[in-house]
Amino acid sequence: MSGLIIWTYDWVPQGPRGFVRDLRLRWACEEAGLDYSVQAVPFDDRETNHLERQPFGQVPFLNDGELQIFESGACLLHLARKSDRLMPPDPAGEAATVQWTIAALNSIEMVTVPWWFLKMSGDEDNKLTGWVGKRLGQLETILNEREWLAAGRFTVADLLMADVLRIPKVRSFGNRPATEAYVQRITERPSFQKVHADQLHHFEAADDAR
Amino acid sequence: MSGLIIWTYDWVPQGPRGFVRDLRLRWACEEAGLDYSVQAVPFDDRETNHLERQPFGQVPFLNDGELQIFESGACLLHLARKSDRLMPPDPAGEAATVQWTIAALNSIEMVTVPWWFLKMSGDEDNKLTGWVGKRLGQLETILNEREWLAAGRFTVADLLMADVLRIPKVRSFGNRPATEAYVQRITERPSFQKVHADQLHHFEAADDAR
Repeated sequence: MSGLIIWTYDWVPQGPRGFVRDLRLRWACEEAGLDYSVQAVPFDDRETNHLERQPFGQVPFLNDGELQIFESGACLLHLARKSDRLMPPDPAGEAATVQWTIAALNSIEMVTVPWWFLKMSGDEDNKLTGWVGKRLGQLETILNEREWLAAGRFTVADLLMADVLRIPKVRSFGNRPATEAYVQRITERPSFQKVHADQLHHFEAADDAR
Repeated sequence: MSGLIIWTYDWVPQGPRGFVRDLRLRWACEEAGLDYSVQAVPFDDRETNHLERQPFGQVPFLNDGELQIFESGACLLHLARKSDRLMPPDPAGEAATVQWTIAALNSIEMVTVPWWFLKMSGDEDNKLTGWVGKRLGQLETILNEREWLAAGRFTVADLLMADVLRIPKVRSFGNRPATEAYVQRITERPSFQKVHADQLHHFEAADDAR
């Protein structure tokens, strides 16, 4: 046993099912062949019941033996250092993988998540739309030229970027065939299919208990 | 010579001076005692003139010998692995430092930058304000209890978080004495004072040439 424990909520409403970020960590473990288990904190009172483990009241967080880590991006970088399947061990491959992992978080998700939030709040045509279009257009140019973001092969950066891009409103933004093929290619991987089904099952099983 | 080259623009307008993110990399090098030089790409046509080195048309990016890295967060993590002064070498210290570095990017800046963008676009009371207040409130609780984010000492996570928080509109958001003291304490460090002055000088020197 590797001692990896991925923490998520015990239950969430229908909307976020299949998108809760414990999926990123499950997926990375499956790609790397790392043993892991999944445990849950209560969704009710989530913003106060586990602040000592995640100070923003969110999930996921990860236990690795004595270590405890929150932020899905930080957990992914931690897991990536355990397996060449997630990050090449050479300096250039590592640098490119970390660079594109951060780009997914800070160049793409930093724009798409607030934009999505505004849309969900009723601001269908909001002032972040132009910025989202610009970033996704730049990414389309990149994905037109290559199959994978870093090191010419699948890495944890693709795992994270595909997860960021598969949010339905982001996925339906404009005509971006290279990006759409990229998201499709990566989410067709058996490891994604497995953990997506596992997450849906985890939350469905909790419906009966409520 | 370590071969570190930090790339920024040759010139920017007054507004962003002192806030362009090459400052983060200069600052990390100063804290770590790493030799570095600064080079520039043209601000004019910035969105197309260096896409092969930064595919979103931004700065900074970093050369380290053969390596080339963009995303300030990725550059900081790369530099942090060169010096214990930026990141403790033990697994727990490293995990905490990476975790809080990602938190600065993906839990705080992901909310504050789009909020600031909306305010600059004329939406003074925008729908991200509540989210910003919640995140900054959670951070205030944390900074009330500790002097540094990770490992009980200054790390690259504090460098980045302080830089994220010192944006004037973020800094003036609400009454957050612990956060204000934190930003003040960290930006009083001689290394910050030096690189802040260096950046201002870099752009001022370019005024004469325009």
